[in-house]
Amino acid sequence: MNELVHAALNRIPADTWITDVRLANVITGEIYPADIVIHRGKVVAVEPPGTQPQRQARQRIHGQGRLAVPGLVDSHLHIESSLVTPAHFAAAVLPRGVTTVAEDPHEIANVLGPTGIRAMIQASAGIPLKVLFLVSSSVPSAAGLETPGGAITPADVRELLALPQVIGLAEVMDGAGLLADDPNALGVLEAAGGLHGYRMDSPGVIEGHNPMLRGRALSAFVAAGVDSDHTQATPPELVEKARLGVTLQLQERYLTRELIQAVMDLPFDTGVCLVTDDVAPDYLLEVGHLDQVLRRAIALGMDPLYALRAATLNPARRLRLWDRGAIAPGRAADIVLVESIEEFQAQLVMVDGQIVAQDGRSLWQPPAQEPLARWTQTVHLPPQRPEDFHLAAPVQEGQIRVRTIDCVPGQTRVTPGQATLPVRAGRIQLPPGEDLVAIAVVERHGRHGGRSFGLIRGLGVERGGLATTYAHDSHNLAIMGRTPEEMARAANAVIAMQGGIAVVEGERVLAQLPLPIAGILSDRPVAETAQALKRVGQALRALGLEHPHWLMRISTFTLPVSSGLRITDLGLVDAQARQLVDLFVA
Amino acid sequence: MNELVHAALNRIPADTWITDVRLANVITGEIYPADIVIHRGKVVAVEPPGTQPQRQARQRIHGQGRLAVPGLVDSHLHIESSLVTPAHFAAAVLPRGVTTVAEDPHEIANVLGPTGIRAMIQASAGIPLKVLFLVSSSVPSAAGLETPGGAITPADVRELLALPQVIGLAEVMDGAGLLADDPNALGVLEAAGGLHGYRMDSPGVIEGHNPMLRGRALSAFVAAGVDSDHTQATPPELVEKARLGVTLQLQERYLTRELIQAVMDLPFDTGVCLVTDDVAPDYLLEVGHLDQVLRRAIALGMDPLYALRAATLNPARRLRLWDRGAIAPGRAADIVLVESIEEFQAQLVMVDGQIVAQDGRSLWQPPAQEPLARWTQTVHLPPQRPEDFHLAAPVQEGQIRVRTIDCVPGQTRVTPGQATLPVRAGRIQLPPGEDLVAIAVVERHGRHGGRSFGLIRGLGVERGGLATTYAHDSHNLAIMGRTPEEMARAANAVIAMQGGIAVVEGERVLAQLPLPIAGILSDRPVAETAQALKRVGQALRALGLEHPHWLMRISTFTLPVSSGLRITDLGLVDAQARQLVDLFVA
Repeated sequence: MNELVHAALNRIPADTWITDVRLANVITGEIYPADIVIHRGKVVAVEPPGTQPQRQARQRIHGQGRLAVPGLVDSHLHIESSLVTPAHFAAAVLPRGVTTVAEDPHEIANVLGPTGIRAMIQASAGIPLKVLFLVSSSVPSAAGLETPGGAITPADVRELLALPQVIGLAEVMDGAGLLADDPNALGVLEAAGGLHGYRMDSPGVIEGHNPMLRGRALSAFVAAGVDSDHTQATPPELVEKARLGVTLQLQERYLTRELIQAVMDLPFDTGVCLVTDDVAPDYLLEVGHLDQVLRRAIALGMDPLYALRAATLNPARRLRLWDRGAIAPGRAADIVLVESIEEFQAQLVMVDGQIVAQDGRSLWQPPAQEPLARWTQTVHLPPQRPEDFHLAAPVQEGQIRVRTIDCVPGQTRVTPGQATLPVRAGRIQLPPGEDLVAIAVVERHGRHGGRSFGLIRGLGVERGGLATTYAHDSHNLAIMGRTPEEMARAANAVIAMQGGIAVVEGERVLAQLPLPIAGILSDRPVAETAQALKRVGQALRALGLEHPHWLMRISTFTLPVSSGLRITDLGLVDAQARQLVDLFVA
Repeated sequence: MNELVHAALNRIPADTWITDVRLANVITGEIYPADIVIHRGKVVAVEPPGTQPQRQARQRIHGQGRLAVPGLVDSHLHIESSLVTPAHFAAAVLPRGVTTVAEDPHEIANVLGPTGIRAMIQASAGIPLKVLFLVSSSVPSAAGLETPGGAITPADVRELLALPQVIGLAEVMDGAGLLADDPNALGVLEAAGGLHGYRMDSPGVIEGHNPMLRGRALSAFVAAGVDSDHTQATPPELVEKARLGVTLQLQERYLTRELIQAVMDLPFDTGVCLVTDDVAPDYLLEVGHLDQVLRRAIALGMDPLYALRAATLNPARRLRLWDRGAIAPGRAADIVLVESIEEFQAQLVMVDGQIVAQDGRSLWQPPAQEPLARWTQTVHLPPQRPEDFHLAAPVQEGQIRVRTIDCVPGQTRVTPGQATLPVRAGRIQLPPGEDLVAIAVVERHGRHGGRSFGLIRGLGVERGGLATTYAHDSHNLAIMGRTPEEMARAANAVIAMQGGIAVVEGERVLAQLPLPIAGILSDRPVAETAQALKRVGQALRALGLEHPHWLMRISTFTLPVSSGLRITDLGLVDAQARQLVDLFVA
């Protein structure tokens, strides 16, 4: 029997009947009273209240005049940025009305390669949050300049795209590689159906990350099939991309009144999407997730229904998820009840017709057995000694000129600098009072265990040290500090946790956040993880590090695909020139 | 080498460089000067005129200030309605700027079954017009009430959907069957991924034809996955469908100022598409195709760029043809140059970067060998005698009460009627001066050769007769006339042509249109076919038949899936009740 049809026709009792709600119709842009009929997880009818004959239904939900809106769809994020597993992530975002996310498991892929992506897929099975996957496209992001734990090859892309949970290629970020005919960049793109222009039979979407690209380089990128971007910083960039057919994905940190005005000023709806990209666990807990981006977009001038469409129907269409994004017959009953779109407090959240969260609380609990627990024990390093962190100079006494990684205050950018430092007994000295710390990056994936050294200026850390295996993109062990003793202590604290972040001062470990899964994820809920993270932040503040995005600050010195001077386990990297450079200036 | 990228970057000469044009950007809704760079059939760059360094290109096209618009995309039509083969159809529509069509080969499928669909696919290969296919879903459209030449089963749907040219299921028109659990209707829909709500992994779109459906029946239809419609006749119907997520496909015959206002009044762009559905060859030749629907929509108040989007980007998205619909990098270089959108006279038409038409003329000619020529000899009937058309009555003399098919003046609808007619020597007489003709339908596919009789009132034919194998949906031989002699003569003229339409008066064949391919398609160009068709129309007018859509008029008495009283080879059909009824009133 054709059950959906029979339930729609009221020939059989439907599973659920939602009454007393106003429907936010993101297809037409209207709000009007409507009853919603749900059967077998699908919306089967939407009809005027009071339609006769009266509905038969097993369950009736009285909406108390609230708005019924579609579950939010996040078309670009990294769950790992919240430092938790998919299950704990789900328990945190479902109560906020987020019901579908398109996950780029870029971080775990850098640790475990395709196995990491499969592990995330497995860990997302059976969770009420609908986690779709995009294959991380740039792992490693700077081949030859860093040692990741795993890599994603064109063959991996092809295999992973064949999985039903995988819907495309995640942000292609190696624009330089693509434009320079880098074989792996081309191979990965071709495996995903790109490179030869759009294909009718493309196996999925191809997402992009194109900061700075303009003009012919931008056309070239889009011609290769990469047609979304979440980095638009200015209205002219945004308009240029929209005109070329790039799907604009707006994240909170780029949102400005001017940018939103530029979107709204385009005569046609360009299908703009709101996305989160990276949300730290404390921010997720205290401020919000995609619900927050929605509120922020509206506060900055976006029409509320338009913003809602940008967080539901548009991303569903972008991702080719025909089965969701609106409350309409045939679509999944992913429905959220709110008092207003502007405030977006999810009072009831339904996924596939099941209530999964109410009044800000998840009714669903992660299973006791975390599937990702298999992937601990990934920090393959022996205990570290202070002498492992001596900054050896090529001279015994005197002075030496070195390259420095200079922090830009308040930002996460760095610029290349230089300094002249004293050398005693063959070791570089950090003069008291100067805002300089040593940084060491130690390969921790069991490949070769090699390490490199550098110097950071302007981090603000006046004493003590810290270590982290959450260090983009290869997630090797990065250690920063003023003394070899404190660096060794911080490193050992992290090794003992098999991954995480530790802050030390003298003999004391001031705070630590265990990230035992792949060295980058907590096995605890978001609240616990957020608390530990905040204690780490407070400890760093006590040492002198003041930064609005301190986690980004300490975890991106190691990011060679970015700009400025960076450091990996292989040495200092001139990110523009894409080459290793010596610590010592010749 | 990554050629598209290199051409975009101007590292190698591009194939074609279009300058001096204003770009109609259907993504953003803007018009601005831009150069278009084409390589290997794809747009690789769109850039401001004068971008330096100057472009290298093998060919430069000076646009003389014209508008560059995307090639038109028709998301719903039946090529067979133009009575020509795909090749001749292409030669006629390409000069009008139509570059992609989604063909529902419903007519030929009724004659030849899946073989007919495959034949059309084969006949469309190598044609510059991009013909995509939707599997005809309702063949026969009224099982048990008519004898078609072929049928489409769920297994056929599955097999055909696997072909790369096939992108979905064509208009599901058997709403009654679906709502009544008809096994074939359910099976066909399920084979196309419908029935259980939308599926993420659906093998294609599922198109609908839902006149009259409202309320719960409409919700049920959409819940089953059927989510487009081209029959919206009134603004309230249109709005109701749009709100439920149905893609609105507007065809010219339903276009009114009010309907367009209703579309434009919806706060959000609902992705409405302009479609042609059925275009007769003479109309195609003299008035136009999708270009005409576009002009008409604009004349009735649709914003020109919005109308252009509805004829390009929206249908491309609806059909999931990511590779077209806009002039942007990575997409097929299907480009039309026009002076204005409102007048839409295609001065240059390009498909995949090749110029295929100029100034209204096709530069492409159909091949001498028509692939469909294999499918002649499909009218399996012996010569007909006058006595085969005697209207036998169950009484010898007196009067008899009969059912009549009553024409609604000016429309193609019919209503059930009755009449009392004299009987002489066991044969019904048509009283002189009464607007009555006999109709006979003869099974012609070689199944059983059976025939049925009926009476039509109000056709206007005062004398003579006509016969046609172009008779929806089963395309059996339908013969109408005042005398058995003329009916036999008309039938024999059509049998001699192995399909077509013939008009006779007395001993003379006044006009005839040969449709030798499957008995429904001409093997001649559109112009020749249109001329012959017009002569047939003139001949019918001479006999008294005045109707704005006379071909629809004479070819739909046999359409049992429609409404009112119809007639098939099996007998008179009460279309509402879906059952055969007797000619004679008990």
